[in-house]
Amino acid sequence: MAIVSVPVEKSYRLLNIGATTLVSAKAEDIENVMSVAWSCALDYGPLSKVTTVLDKQAFTRGLVEKSGLFAIQIPVANQAELVIKLGTTSRHNNPHKIDDVEIFYPDGFDVPLVKGCAGWIICQLIRDENNQQNHDLFIGKVLAAYADDRVFKDAHWIFEQAPNELRTLHYVAGGQFYLIGESLEVK
Amino acid sequence: MAIVSVPVEKSYRLLNIGATTLVSAKAEDIENVMSVAWSCALDYGPLSKVTTVLDKQAFTRGLVEKSGLFAIQIPVANQAELVIKLGTTSRHNNPHKIDDVEIFYPDGFDVPLVKGCAGWIICQLIRDENNQQNHDLFIGKVLAAYADDRVFKDAHWIFEQAPNELRTLHYVAGGQFYLIGESLEVK
Repeated sequence: MAIVSVPVEKSYRLLNIGATTLVSAKAEDIENVMSVAWSCALDYGPLSKVTTVLDKQAFTRGLVEKSGLFAIQIPVANQAELVIKLGTTSRHNNPHKIDDVEIFYPDGFDVPLVKGCAGWIICQLIRDENNQQNHDLFIGKVLAAYADDRVFKDAHWIFEQAPNELRTLHYVAGGQFYLIGESLEVK
Repeated sequence: MAIVSVPVEKSYRLLNIGATTLVSAKAEDIENVMSVAWSCALDYGPLSKVTTVLDKQAFTRGLVEKSGLFAIQIPVANQAELVIKLGTTSRHNNPHKIDDVEIFYPDGFDVPLVKGCAGWIICQLIRDENNQQNHDLFIGKVLAAYADDRVFKDAHWIFEQAPNELRTLHYVAGGQFYLIGESLEVK
């Protein structure tokens, strides 16, 4: 297994399938990670952009607003318990929320990433008060992206070649997800 | 099989799993439908909102701008060929683009819906020139939602009880999708 760079212009491919995400950020030496079902690609090409929805009560939102930097990452089946935990606890109430989470840092960006994900997208916040205040909607410009090459290669997901525990999670409600399933190709 | 109402406040559940969508609209008696990989929930509750990304070249975009009304619908496996066709042809070039598409109208809303989908969300455009012009991003307020009760019931997807051809499509690239897969529950 290797973590490989994904060209910025192809980073939308990581989000196309609509998997549940984790959003992480760091400001003033405080890190946090939260689960976000509502992250989406917004543009591709050299100026690739993403959207994500961060509630006003979310601790991570404050870090994003301060630092202007965040990461969207794609967790996988064997992280399902972690995704539920990171979506149901807040660092506002529990300063130890991410003590057990294995974090690493990419070269050149001061944003914490969660080990074990299938993909990671580093984003610079494009500040927009109207969207952030009225819709909790945050737009990011993609600076870099990475993927686990067992499951994403040459800008395509390759789930059929990877272990099932690396399948992406698609959130329903409560503790329930669906995993991504079979490939279907229209000729 | 029956098409049942989904409460507006739970309509985000139709989008949570990140399936590829179809966006439809009608203005001045002209209808159109296009495939959109980038539709997402934006809020839940009585003021449920959605986002969708409509390129400036998209014929459907003009209809949405004129009428202020659009529908996001969730197509399924046996519509894969249709989804590719509706995503690779434009009514700008082919006025007969949707002649073969089976359309129906919901009670009370003048917006065309595609038969055979798993879910339909009727939205009123919340106009925002900055988002529309600079990001091709359209925000909608959910007015009503419906689902095929073989596959979505009591605000939950029930894929494990439905035929495989009703599984949702998650777009990769070219003609390839992944179908939604197995349920995974964290206790």
